[in-house]
Amino acid sequence: MTESDLPVANLTPGHWGNPAHTVELPAAALDALKDLGIHRPPPPPKPSPQPNTALTAAQLAFLSTVVGSQHVAADWDSRWAHTRGYSTTDLLRFRAGDTSDVPDVIVYPGTHDEVQAILSGAAEHGLAVVPYAGGTSVVGGLAPTRNFITLDLRRLDQLLELDEISRTATLQAGVRGPAAEALLAEHGYTLGHFPQSYEGASIGGYAAARSSGQSSAGYGRFDQMVVALTLATPRGTIELGRAPMSAAGPDLRQLILGSEGALGVITSVVVRIRPRPTERHFEGWHFADFATGLTAVRRLAQDGPLPTVLRLSDEVETAVNLADPDVLGGGAGGVLAIIGFDGPYNQATADVLTAAGGTNLGEGPGETWRLGRYRAPYLRDPLLDEGALVETLETATFWSRIPALKAAVTQALVDALGTTPPLVLCHISHVYETGASLYFTVICAQTDDPVTQWRTAKAAASQAIADAGGTISHHHGVGTDHRDAYTAEIGPLAVEALQAVKQTLDPHNVMNPGILLP
Amino acid sequence: MTESDLPVANLTPGHWGNPAHTVELPAAALDALKDLGIHRPPPPPKPSPQPNTALTAAQLAFLSTVVGSQHVAADWDSRWAHTRGYSTTDLLRFRAGDTSDVPDVIVYPGTHDEVQAILSGAAEHGLAVVPYAGGTSVVGGLAPTRNFITLDLRRLDQLLELDEISRTATLQAGVRGPAAEALLAEHGYTLGHFPQSYEGASIGGYAAARSSGQSSAGYGRFDQMVVALTLATPRGTIELGRAPMSAAGPDLRQLILGSEGALGVITSVVVRIRPRPTERHFEGWHFADFATGLTAVRRLAQDGPLPTVLRLSDEVETAVNLADPDVLGGGAGGVLAIIGFDGPYNQATADVLTAAGGTNLGEGPGETWRLGRYRAPYLRDPLLDEGALVETLETATFWSRIPALKAAVTQALVDALGTTPPLVLCHISHVYETGASLYFTVICAQTDDPVTQWRTAKAAASQAIADAGGTISHHHGVGTDHRDAYTAEIGPLAVEALQAVKQTLDPHNVMNPGILLP
Repeated sequence: MTESDLPVANLTPGHWGNPAHTVELPAAALDALKDLGIHRPPPPPKPSPQPNTALTAAQLAFLSTVVGSQHVAADWDSRWAHTRGYSTTDLLRFRAGDTSDVPDVIVYPGTHDEVQAILSGAAEHGLAVVPYAGGTSVVGGLAPTRNFITLDLRRLDQLLELDEISRTATLQAGVRGPAAEALLAEHGYTLGHFPQSYEGASIGGYAAARSSGQSSAGYGRFDQMVVALTLATPRGTIELGRAPMSAAGPDLRQLILGSEGALGVITSVVVRIRPRPTERHFEGWHFADFATGLTAVRRLAQDGPLPTVLRLSDEVETAVNLADPDVLGGGAGGVLAIIGFDGPYNQATADVLTAAGGTNLGEGPGETWRLGRYRAPYLRDPLLDEGALVETLETATFWSRIPALKAAVTQALVDALGTTPPLVLCHISHVYETGASLYFTVICAQTDDPVTQWRTAKAAASQAIADAGGTISHHHGVGTDHRDAYTAEIGPLAVEALQAVKQTLDPHNVMNPGILLP
Repeated sequence: MTESDLPVANLTPGHWGNPAHTVELPAAALDALKDLGIHRPPPPPKPSPQPNTALTAAQLAFLSTVVGSQHVAADWDSRWAHTRGYSTTDLLRFRAGDTSDVPDVIVYPGTHDEVQAILSGAAEHGLAVVPYAGGTSVVGGLAPTRNFITLDLRRLDQLLELDEISRTATLQAGVRGPAAEALLAEHGYTLGHFPQSYEGASIGGYAAARSSGQSSAGYGRFDQMVVALTLATPRGTIELGRAPMSAAGPDLRQLILGSEGALGVITSVVVRIRPRPTERHFEGWHFADFATGLTAVRRLAQDGPLPTVLRLSDEVETAVNLADPDVLGGGAGGVLAIIGFDGPYNQATADVLTAAGGTNLGEGPGETWRLGRYRAPYLRDPLLDEGALVETLETATFWSRIPALKAAVTQALVDALGTTPPLVLCHISHVYETGASLYFTVICAQTDDPVTQWRTAKAAASQAIADAGGTISHHHGVGTDHRDAYTAEIGPLAVEALQAVKQTLDPHNVMNPGILLP
């Protein structure tokens, strides 16, 4: 199964991913949970009442006029299915029947002009708008602070243009990951963007949230792939990008990428594409400890040659390996790295790892990782069922700060979750010449109020990240969950500048209110 | 002589570069000028009167209080030497004794805090401020629309921090190119940024104008090297960059890079550095025509392996080669490409060029290019002396648009300069996977009013660039010369958004008024 063979997910409300791909916990994992003091919690309370849409007939008529009444859905199932994203607190609140963030109506525009017409009329009709592409936010990116309509972009599903000379493709915002690969594969190309949300996330979300995929060492981040974009705002449309790079003023594309729907709706992007590889190689490597492995991956990031995929788990993640005990040879000691090549195997990469103290474990662990690469989030649902609190968080910083940052975040999580001592797993999955990302997975027993439990721990971890000089997100984005940390990170004057941009493009604050900016 | 051996230039007012490096035109070039109908013009008129500074004693006292009176210069020579930049129209106006853009006083702050204090007090004291780093703008970036003080940043000349683990260096804005290389060379590192303005331009200017150097294929653009920056604005200081890349909102670093002093003064940047190469190789390649060479360099840009330097001249530039007739074997037909490697020679690169129809000309043309790489701008002064109008312009676009754009710009220049038919030379010097830059050099006879002559031709070329889908600048910036084309390129709504940012950071419009934005 390759990336373009994966079916487009129809995410199940309150559960991650494609229902056909759900997994059960292995017996060994269930035993391990008991060792951690984790027990199946009582069943969730009954769902709350299902409030009717708060929209008026006039508001619904406006929306129907723009997109056609068949593309406006106010029924409960549609609204419930578009509620929040897929953070653990989102799932926990979903399970608890918390209806506080349910959108009032789901609108399915079919063209850029329809999106523009809705945004242009939103203020007059008293509507707040949440752009919804794949719906896979894990940072509270879909839960604004007041009643709203959700703009589901799935009908914007076209490959509008393919420029084989320039190697660019114009893709609409609603094209999901597997669909993008399938559209490009027909012509022999790949985007090369494979985040863990790949099955459900879409082009517009990748752009709006500055996504980074598992093959980022070879293909770069999504914001590095975008060379042009079209943004619908309540004030009109902005089109940017006449060249790969320019010195004509600031790079305003980079002001739109990462704006998370707070400035407008990205309706299409022009992205760099590459020829689809005819071969792929994945393999595992063993290092004595995380520090040795860290130096090895830094060597590749700084002096090359980089593989397409480069990941390094720490000792705890290597040993625990909740994703699949077979992959990492858990318990053998040391740490595991995964490298992957789109194209021929590069012996020079392997030579660097060997010189840095690595031992080649061959293709077995690499292939196991490849086959399970989208599976980890599916494990969360049965773990939550069993009473475990499972969540991830991520950051990035410069190489010299990584050891101290990793230690500080781990300690902050252990201290904050002290009464239910957590396992804290960590890996590096995105590298640059000057630094890398750190991705943490936490697992512990749920308390009676797991939402508050996690929020307290997350706040402690966020403070540790800031104190250690890291950014609050390398690829998940800001949403509402990271808003306070984000504004502290860029400082009050930069926040004011960004608010001035929002005030210009969205003077009535109809776009994703409360997301990104206070 | 390597890049770090080059002395820091003390630019001569009205003449490019280091006086020690001035050149004379070869006899063959003088003959060629006659063939083009170019004759030595009459001597310029007497310099205009030297107006006194318009600043009041109170204004001068404020400045002296902040930086010390020994760092405030209101004498004519200092002011005249800081007048405008180095575009051909700048030089022509300088020669004509046009004093309309002379700054009122030159201030030399020694610290970020002194810069901040001046900006914080500028509005209260009725001062407009032009940041001046290397002073090498060729787009009217130093000539605002009203009386102003020039903030010469040369005293901000320190390497503040070197992080050898992260491979980053914190450099102050006033460090000029050769000084930056010398500071880094002490520790075995290089920045790898070698624009043609290298001798005079500085770190702050590179950042503010999104500079790109001759080794961009290997080292990237300057805005790709910057991982963190400090900006002093009239409202206070902004510090950005905790990681190489982040998903915490838009990349606001890319909003500051390219802001050309209109938002504030970049006082320092943290840049990626690399180990200093121990060997270098340059060589020439011949292709039958520009189209064949274009496909060859595109192959390298898209599929690699890229050399560090990659340039391709068109037929006219290859034949004329005003820079040095020995370099390009002028008249042999076809086109010349130059490739260069910082580090070992890569045969795989040569193999791609051979497969694409190239013939290896060996190291001779490569070394000649390397030795003369900063020489071309020096030729302009004696050419202007002889009555030639010489100027360059540049753009970038996607690969598929390049042939039509090149033809359209060439035709626009020929049409606009019809009474004095020009030679239009062109080369590609910066490549990306999805596109490349085009750099044009124009030479023809001056009319009686060469400033208007060039402005008319430039307007026609700019319109041709826009019509063909190119950006108005790949690496020279916007300044005042490109302002109208720039605002048309990003559109009125994006201009409003940028003005809102300026209004927030610079509410009294003291920063470089008239530069970048109307």
